[in-house]
Amino acid sequence: MKKEEQKIVVAVDESEESMYALSWCLENLVPHNNKSTLVLLYVKPPPTVYSLDAAGYMFAHDAVAALEKYGSDLVNSVMARAEAVIRNFGTDNTNVERITGSGDAKDVICSTVKKLGADTLVMGSHGYGFFKRALLGSVSDYCAKHAKCPVVIVKHPDDK
Amino acid sequence: MKKEEQKIVVAVDESEESMYALSWCLENLVPHNNKSTLVLLYVKPPPTVYSLDAAGYMFAHDAVAALEKYGSDLVNSVMARAEAVIRNFGTDNTNVERITGSGDAKDVICSTVKKLGADTLVMGSHGYGFFKRALLGSVSDYCAKHAKCPVVIVKHPDDK
Repeated sequence: MKKEEQKIVVAVDESEESMYALSWCLENLVPHNNKSTLVLLYVKPPPTVYSLDAAGYMFAHDAVAALEKYGSDLVNSVMARAEAVIRNFGTDNTNVERITGSGDAKDVICSTVKKLGADTLVMGSHGYGFFKRALLGSVSDYCAKHAKCPVVIVKHPDDK
Repeated sequence: MKKEEQKIVVAVDESEESMYALSWCLENLVPHNNKSTLVLLYVKPPPTVYSLDAAGYMFAHDAVAALEKYGSDLVNSVMARAEAVIRNFGTDNTNVERITGSGDAKDVICSTVKKLGADTLVMGSHGYGFFKRALLGSVSDYCAKHAKCPVVIVKHPDDK
């Protein structure tokens, strides 16, 4: 029944909670599957479409470039934090992959899980912003329903 | 960070899916925590209140007794199936406890998790009936939001 190599996707973002979810995964799921592949998945929001007149063009161009720079700095910083968490656990024999997606987090997460044929998805219960969550429902709710594999929803221990 | 003894609650019911969730748990969470306690939690629906006139009393009494008998047969059958699943995995050094609750499944599951100070809750994504789920939302949705620990939502592999 058990596959030899487990593929575990952890959805990471800027939140403490997603780093806690990663720790939970390393502590509870990874150690006894030496052949695990841990996929760190970060989803950037979709690029904003700007509509400006000719006078604003140069400014807009700079602003877009600055936002894109900010976006890729954010990816690097989230991935660097995640890798520090992994190093801390000393799970050196685990194969770690990084995937950065772009678009609506819930869709990108579910489609990545499907494409990879992942065995487990691990994510924080919050993330992706309070207002967006209040308006659209939480990303983790959606993924728990729609992802094609078991989903672990991890809450930050302080958030009880 | 890691506690020595992990307490894992698995919510079991009549569904194939909940047995699959138990298997997932035995396969992925239990083996590398030898000191785990696995709590099998089954929630019976709350007893129905009957309002009948005197003529119907004897019948009602028999019917209630029959329903109660049916309910406890169901508990025994679900627990027996769960224990067969556990035996199949040969995890004899895992401490197994059985808890039968009564009431609204989502409330009983969350309050049991809290009372036991459980480390992880594992459950199927469905269970507790299609119509009830359509009307009231799924039990697993509620628990993923409200249980005071990480929650694993396991879907039956055929249900993709």
